[in-house]
Amino acid sequence: MIEIKKLGDHVGAEVTVTGWVEATRGHGKVSFTVVRDGTGIVQGVLVKSQVDEAVWEIQQALTQESVVALTGVVKADDRAPGGYELGVTRVALVSQAEEYPIQPKEHGVEFLMDHRHLWLRSSLQRAVLRIRAEVEQAVHDFFYDRDFVRIDTPILTGAIGEHAGTLFETDYFGDPAYLAQTGQLYVEAACPAFRRVYCFGPTFRAEKSKTRRHLTEFWMVEPEVAFADSDDNMRLQEKFVSYLVARALERCEDELGVLERDTSLLEKVKPPFPRISYSDAVEELQGKGSEVEWGQDLGASDETLLMEDRELPLFVHDYPKGAKAFYMKENPEDPRTVLCDDLLAPEGYGEIIGGSQREDDLHRLQERIREEKLPEEAYAWYLDLRRYGTFPHSGFGLGIERTVAWISGRHHVREMIPFPRLMNRLYP
Amino acid sequence: MIEIKKLGDHVGAEVTVTGWVEATRGHGKVSFTVVRDGTGIVQGVLVKSQVDEAVWEIQQALTQESVVALTGVVKADDRAPGGYELGVTRVALVSQAEEYPIQPKEHGVEFLMDHRHLWLRSSLQRAVLRIRAEVEQAVHDFFYDRDFVRIDTPILTGAIGEHAGTLFETDYFGDPAYLAQTGQLYVEAACPAFRRVYCFGPTFRAEKSKTRRHLTEFWMVEPEVAFADSDDNMRLQEKFVSYLVARALERCEDELGVLERDTSLLEKVKPPFPRISYSDAVEELQGKGSEVEWGQDLGASDETLLMEDRELPLFVHDYPKGAKAFYMKENPEDPRTVLCDDLLAPEGYGEIIGGSQREDDLHRLQERIREEKLPEEAYAWYLDLRRYGTFPHSGFGLGIERTVAWISGRHHVREMIPFPRLMNRLYP
Repeated sequence: MIEIKKLGDHVGAEVTVTGWVEATRGHGKVSFTVVRDGTGIVQGVLVKSQVDEAVWEIQQALTQESVVALTGVVKADDRAPGGYELGVTRVALVSQAEEYPIQPKEHGVEFLMDHRHLWLRSSLQRAVLRIRAEVEQAVHDFFYDRDFVRIDTPILTGAIGEHAGTLFETDYFGDPAYLAQTGQLYVEAACPAFRRVYCFGPTFRAEKSKTRRHLTEFWMVEPEVAFADSDDNMRLQEKFVSYLVARALERCEDELGVLERDTSLLEKVKPPFPRISYSDAVEELQGKGSEVEWGQDLGASDETLLMEDRELPLFVHDYPKGAKAFYMKENPEDPRTVLCDDLLAPEGYGEIIGGSQREDDLHRLQERIREEKLPEEAYAWYLDLRRYGTFPHSGFGLGIERTVAWISGRHHVREMIPFPRLMNRLYP
Repeated sequence: MIEIKKLGDHVGAEVTVTGWVEATRGHGKVSFTVVRDGTGIVQGVLVKSQVDEAVWEIQQALTQESVVALTGVVKADDRAPGGYELGVTRVALVSQAEEYPIQPKEHGVEFLMDHRHLWLRSSLQRAVLRIRAEVEQAVHDFFYDRDFVRIDTPILTGAIGEHAGTLFETDYFGDPAYLAQTGQLYVEAACPAFRRVYCFGPTFRAEKSKTRRHLTEFWMVEPEVAFADSDDNMRLQEKFVSYLVARALERCEDELGVLERDTSLLEKVKPPFPRISYSDAVEELQGKGSEVEWGQDLGASDETLLMEDRELPLFVHDYPKGAKAFYMKENPEDPRTVLCDDLLAPEGYGEIIGGSQREDDLHRLQERIREEKLPEEAYAWYLDLRRYGTFPHSGFGLGIERTVAWISGRHHVREMIPFPRLMNRLYP
């Protein structure tokens, strides 16, 4: 059995490829069978006069997604998808498919989501998920090559994350446990052991949101660096994001082509990224007619407005304390604000990173926990990190689905993950 | 600021290193400070007569885990840990630590687990977690280099896994959802799209078990290959496991040294691994005095007995149907058994892999689901994979913590994960 992407090594030879029938067509004398084997697509050409009647009959009865083994001679053909064609001599049926629910026509999105386990086979979905896989490998390579130690942080936690009220709860042998919204607090604990660390895994938000930018379960990568300040942090972010984009451009050319992605703007994504302070951003937005007021977090529509004339990702830094999480470090130059940044992607893709320098002063952190009315006992271990050798440190979280959406040029994050979980979707 | 592991590039120069104080000692004229910065360890030597009184006073007051910046001249010294020493000229205190709970003495395991967020800093824990991180990168590299597409499978599922009764449940906007015990069923769905796929993430078992081999939350890697049979599957497993071991031997020499791991047996881990059928294994065990009877799964003590004279990992294949999960393919040569394997690690580390060829016959799979009294509607999408182009395929799951325990030569899986979750442990 030869894989389709290796056909070029076998031109002129007779080989067998095994895969799923994407389509058949033909007339009385010649039939075509398009087969997908997971490594590529090839068209088999069957000439009735050249094969046994039995072979012809099998081909005529093939249904979409049936599994076949096509044997034939490999021919180079520039017009063929993938560049090769198979002059079929034998067709063996591995399994006959029942009538396939997904037809080459428009289906409603709920129908496709109900059939996500099959929809994955379609060319656009394959392209997106290959880009996702490439970006994820790039995440690991980037940090591995820079001596970060990967730290797997727990999903089941007694402590809560940053957004109380949006937690999934479970019974843990009689006690309540919550699904983690972030691994950050835990990677902070690993900094004194390894200096540079990161986690990468699923995170959970029980948000009653149906927008195209939210999933209840999504994947996030969260690096944390000891002795890095907010400026170092932004420099790491722009290097990291540029690396991910470059890897996709370099190794996913076919997939970006399938998605008809205009890559000219992606080619420009190189450090440094422009920066604007939150205060300047608010002023700019007000000048553009936004009703945002200093002190409020920026919403999706403000982010879009801010990015409308910008081609590169943009850092918005030093937000007001009240708009951000309790663990961010107070800005010594303006204590109304914290040392943090959001990184906004261009082309309307919105926030892909939130980062900050962490509050390393024990008493200020305790105050913030009390102000936010968080359960102090759950954070006792986190406070210990400030008791026993506290140190300046910074980190960020990058959402994989939003990043892949931007790189792929697709606007719905629900298609950026193999099996999306939304408020109204837990199946398949 | 110079990182300790780079000191060799600066011999003879004055540099500053910043990190945590592991220990101080000395007498009236000379003081030693051992500093850990996450990249290495270095000893600073302070001669009282050569520094300002103020510098001497700061050093004298240093507590364990305080953060300091030591400035001094780098000297090569073969007797020093790491091979270099710092002739200290200045000491700057970044933060003074309160009295550190973990002292250089024996602590009880519960105490250490309660302080896991600090215990991570100790040398044995650092060594184990670096090996874990190396093994995890090796997992991704192995599959990436072999054109597997990574598929992130969902944690929140409506469907249940293979061990009903050991599920964590949560309220999902009014409906029950369960934390996934495996990603396998989902990666199977991605095979017709990509042929070779894998998932890697946390999995959950609400097992009331307190043994040293169980965690309620652990990480598992699960590859799945279209058109691979049980024999192909075992060959992939032995290649994969050998690769992980070789990577650790090659790139974690220091860490294995810290753990005093005898690596001679690990050096022998190369394909092919010996195989024994379940039936032969039962016979051998009975000969050795075990009371196991044909039809029962093998327990931990049987696995230990089976491995006592074996140096290499061992495949035990083709278990009785009743002892294994519903989705395993019936063995055509002995329908009492299924086409599956467990891979047992030597040296008493037990099962690290469970794998199988999957049942690809729709009706036989439906029967098995009914026999096991599983909720058929939750598996409707899984059955679809047999309706629409069913295909022979195989895969396996390797548990990261058990594999790292074996490679590290440590017997408690709870130390193989940064923040272990056990029946009685959800903190920190």
